[in-house]
Amino acid sequence: MYSGGYTGKILRIDLSNRTAREEPLPEEMARAFIGGAGLGIKHIFDEVRPGTDPLGPDNILVFAPGPFTAAGVPCASRMAVTARSPLTGAVGMALSGGEFPTEIKFAGWDAIIIEGKADKPTYVAIMGSDVSFRDASHCWGTLTFDCQQIIKNELRDQNVRVCCIGPAGEHLSRIACIVNERRAVGRKGLGAVMGAKGLKAIAIRGSGRVAIASEDKYRAARAALLRAFKASPVLYPEFSQHGTPMVADLTGALGVLPAKNWTATGEFVPIEGIGRDAQAARKIGREHCHDCPVGCGQLRVAGAGPYAGILTEGPDFETVYAFGSGVGIGTVDPIIAADRLADELGLDSISAGVTVSFAMELFERGILTLEETDGIDLRFGNDQALMQLLRKMAFRDGLGDLLADGSLAAAKKIGQGTDKYAMQVKGLELPGYDVRALKAHGLGYATSYTGADHCRGYAFQEVFGVPIPWGVDRFAAEGKGKLTIWNQDVRTATLDCAPMCAFLLDMAVPATACENTAALMEGVTGLVFTPEEVMRVGERVNNLARAFNVREGFTRADDTLPERLMTEPLKAGASKGHVISRQDLDTMLDEYYSLRGWDVSTGTPTRAKLIELGLAYAADALGL
Amino acid sequence: MYSGGYTGKILRIDLSNRTAREEPLPEEMARAFIGGAGLGIKHIFDEVRPGTDPLGPDNILVFAPGPFTAAGVPCASRMAVTARSPLTGAVGMALSGGEFPTEIKFAGWDAIIIEGKADKPTYVAIMGSDVSFRDASHCWGTLTFDCQQIIKNELRDQNVRVCCIGPAGEHLSRIACIVNERRAVGRKGLGAVMGAKGLKAIAIRGSGRVAIASEDKYRAARAALLRAFKASPVLYPEFSQHGTPMVADLTGALGVLPAKNWTATGEFVPIEGIGRDAQAARKIGREHCHDCPVGCGQLRVAGAGPYAGILTEGPDFETVYAFGSGVGIGTVDPIIAADRLADELGLDSISAGVTVSFAMELFERGILTLEETDGIDLRFGNDQALMQLLRKMAFRDGLGDLLADGSLAAAKKIGQGTDKYAMQVKGLELPGYDVRALKAHGLGYATSYTGADHCRGYAFQEVFGVPIPWGVDRFAAEGKGKLTIWNQDVRTATLDCAPMCAFLLDMAVPATACENTAALMEGVTGLVFTPEEVMRVGERVNNLARAFNVREGFTRADDTLPERLMTEPLKAGASKGHVISRQDLDTMLDEYYSLRGWDVSTGTPTRAKLIELGLAYAADALGL
Repeated sequence: MYSGGYTGKILRIDLSNRTAREEPLPEEMARAFIGGAGLGIKHIFDEVRPGTDPLGPDNILVFAPGPFTAAGVPCASRMAVTARSPLTGAVGMALSGGEFPTEIKFAGWDAIIIEGKADKPTYVAIMGSDVSFRDASHCWGTLTFDCQQIIKNELRDQNVRVCCIGPAGEHLSRIACIVNERRAVGRKGLGAVMGAKGLKAIAIRGSGRVAIASEDKYRAARAALLRAFKASPVLYPEFSQHGTPMVADLTGALGVLPAKNWTATGEFVPIEGIGRDAQAARKIGREHCHDCPVGCGQLRVAGAGPYAGILTEGPDFETVYAFGSGVGIGTVDPIIAADRLADELGLDSISAGVTVSFAMELFERGILTLEETDGIDLRFGNDQALMQLLRKMAFRDGLGDLLADGSLAAAKKIGQGTDKYAMQVKGLELPGYDVRALKAHGLGYATSYTGADHCRGYAFQEVFGVPIPWGVDRFAAEGKGKLTIWNQDVRTATLDCAPMCAFLLDMAVPATACENTAALMEGVTGLVFTPEEVMRVGERVNNLARAFNVREGFTRADDTLPERLMTEPLKAGASKGHVISRQDLDTMLDEYYSLRGWDVSTGTPTRAKLIELGLAYAADALGL
Repeated sequence: MYSGGYTGKILRIDLSNRTAREEPLPEEMARAFIGGAGLGIKHIFDEVRPGTDPLGPDNILVFAPGPFTAAGVPCASRMAVTARSPLTGAVGMALSGGEFPTEIKFAGWDAIIIEGKADKPTYVAIMGSDVSFRDASHCWGTLTFDCQQIIKNELRDQNVRVCCIGPAGEHLSRIACIVNERRAVGRKGLGAVMGAKGLKAIAIRGSGRVAIASEDKYRAARAALLRAFKASPVLYPEFSQHGTPMVADLTGALGVLPAKNWTATGEFVPIEGIGRDAQAARKIGREHCHDCPVGCGQLRVAGAGPYAGILTEGPDFETVYAFGSGVGIGTVDPIIAADRLADELGLDSISAGVTVSFAMELFERGILTLEETDGIDLRFGNDQALMQLLRKMAFRDGLGDLLADGSLAAAKKIGQGTDKYAMQVKGLELPGYDVRALKAHGLGYATSYTGADHCRGYAFQEVFGVPIPWGVDRFAAEGKGKLTIWNQDVRTATLDCAPMCAFLLDMAVPATACENTAALMEGVTGLVFTPEEVMRVGERVNNLARAFNVREGFTRADDTLPERLMTEPLKAGASKGHVISRQDLDTMLDEYYSLRGWDVSTGTPTRAKLIELGLAYAADALGL
């Protein structure tokens, strides 16, 4: 029996009937899924029937922190938000930090499940066990930061934590995010799920505390983690001081920083204009998630010129790519301004940036003309055009309406074979790592249950070269199946289910993350796990997520990459000449499915594998 | 002896030495000046020596609420901020509401005096009696709302109240304001005084309460006031619901809403595009100052188009004029966006708008060309030009540097007789009432100790026609001396010294404001005042302020109006043909000085008058 960490209670909110009720979190569910993404995926598998419209009333939205959240564990103020994604149709799961996840636990909940649909714009105020449904008609149309403040004033409590959607979510943009303070539950269009439910915001405040099962074991596990943080050559020396933009310099040097909608990787020159030092010059302070000793959240303010004075927490590396090199912008201030604007509009910066770069490529190719762009000169590098387009996307104004659902949906509407310029997997736009010379990333994006996901497809071994028990040749296809499965399962267990910040794995305990999570589980919750059992949770969740996607019709054919990456070798830079061929991908997929215990021809988990993982019900649901 | 209301303590903060000390508020000072502007003007008269550079270390800045602030009196969460104005060189006093004034009292202070100059950007955190000086280097360059949030996060207290300057104050723009939450200490460039002192912000929090001298008398006075509020046909029915933009409709109908830098009063057609109903259509909620039952602060959000989603608290009438008709803009959304932008940049909306309209007139006259405007098409009505220019003014970028000190300073630099297009008195830009057909307003602006001040020169009798003991012909010069003195003294005592919101006088108790203040004084503080004694405080403060200005070299010659208003009759509308001639003004000034007991030729208070008011030291200081 767990005796710490978990509150043992799940809050289920039905917007249709304006009711809230408490459900228990059974110990066997905690054991099987830990929390976070595990709880989310378990619930959507059980409750979201096949073919459910992601923007209909029958989709559910699960906000789940984990057993370590609010327990004083560094990097554990995280939550997973899970629904069927309106962008991909697959599992939509995205993570966020900040204070909101901790407040969920303080309020007494292991998870919050939102179901149904409000008959008018609504926000939900959760004050511990007291839940009220409040009219949000007046907040509809407000930008995210303003909305948060309006709600705090209205509740006469400046200490409530608020997550909300912006105009993008209201207008059901399928690349809309959910914003909590200056952080975002960014990807897969979960903001549109809130918007479709008429849910503008969730405000939460609690006064509870989380019990610790074994103080001694807790302290030892926590201390070991902090020691590992301290030993990292990157975490405090770099990420605390300057956040993640140094990855732009790193990927630039490796020749894998995508530029101009992936047409100019390795060619884009002014990395020094957008990378670490340029960003560092704009720093004015930093923000920490609750109980985080790192504080990667860099507050930066744009310098002289039309964006002077604009502040953002960020941009992180992915935004430097999406609003910088990706759209051909080589200076830091427009990236800061676009990051802030996307946060206020409630748009995912990666998907929004890549969708704009897609439109820019079409404009430069003459497929979109000034008439179709509402007169905007959409050439690569036009930062004012980027700002205008972000606003238009969030409000579905003119060309923005066409682009508001991401690059693939836009390509389908435009036709003319433009889907080959949409840099996405399963509809989710690609993060900033050119997989032509980072093949484990390629396999990771192709097989991630969420699409091309910077959290789910990341292979740190190809970028940072952190020692793990196998050597990695980033150009080779061989052995990437095994590496990708390891990455996916360990990330899923320790970062998505626990859930904890990716720095834990990528920077602190790359080889021993499962050991660390097992030790924390015993100390915080009293549940005894071996490291292998932790890893097994990751495998279980990846299989259940895959089963969800299979049930929605996804097959091996969907585990693919944009045609350009498989046919056009990199033209310049340190990775010049490399490509991730169809054959490379097939080689990797064969290895991956085979080691997964999945059917190699369809990519479907076998009944035996599902039963082995305690997922017989999933096998039944798939008719295996 | 006062036994309630006052805390009896003034906090003096020396930024040069980073020291804070407590001073008593003597009862005789409370009796003579009540609080607010009275305390401020008394202190600058005593402490700011003649010729002191308003932007030097020897200017002081006095933040003073009043005896009713934080005492549960409606409309009393107000403070006066006083310094020598860098815009006018005269007394700089401006008021603001919100929560900050109340928090000063909760922290235990009747006033806060800031002196000296910090050697690096600093903010002061006042936690009750504990004062700390904190580095603000990182906040330098941030916009006002962001700055407030950064400081709340840094102090780990979301309930501190913060007032701060924006880039405009940092760049010593002489039209910079101080912003507290969504409210501004708007006029006379007090933001630049903070900027010159290196003071980015003041954060304050207190837990004290204000004693009430006589509960019965307090309750009776408070109840009488609330009854008067309820009886007003305007206050709850209109201002609670829609704020003050209906004044645009009203002045439009009277033919006195200035347009296009006062060249088109009465001609500007689309008042329906910017007035009450247009603003009401954008309303999403409202905000109240502490203990205010009215809540005139309207939250409005711009509709579809380039400003979609932008929220502001406002715009109030003056901003509708300054960013609307004054610059030739006839739609509501750009006004909302400009209001928000000015708040974030820390620019006074009236002075900024009028300065932009001045530049627009010069552009249309060919005096400023595209080369001098940095390529901006500065025609009247160009809303994008307005936004660009506001940013440039706050950062002193290009043309913005020329305009950053207001219209008169710009005219002096440009030369070519352009000062006749600068719509200002003593350097302070004119509010939105065309005095050619509102002659008491004209005399009020000409003689106000702060320049053309919407708070100090206002004559509600000409606009709302509220019954007072004399009839008012707004076109006539006769009798305006007496009316103006009455207005100035009653406003000074009840609105500036008490200080209470202007609605008290203009809408609730126009004929009995001094009676109400006297009753509240006795109930809250225990000090017994007759209504005449209250009025006498107003007279005393107006005389002392005048003495300050005389000492700085101001004479009758400075009590004047822009040449255009004295020579060009109104060309259209309900007040067509009217003008406020030089002779009109002289007639009114003669009557005014004479009734004031001032020397009619110089406008200097006589020794006898000053002695009568207990201001012998002022007479001595002036060598009378």
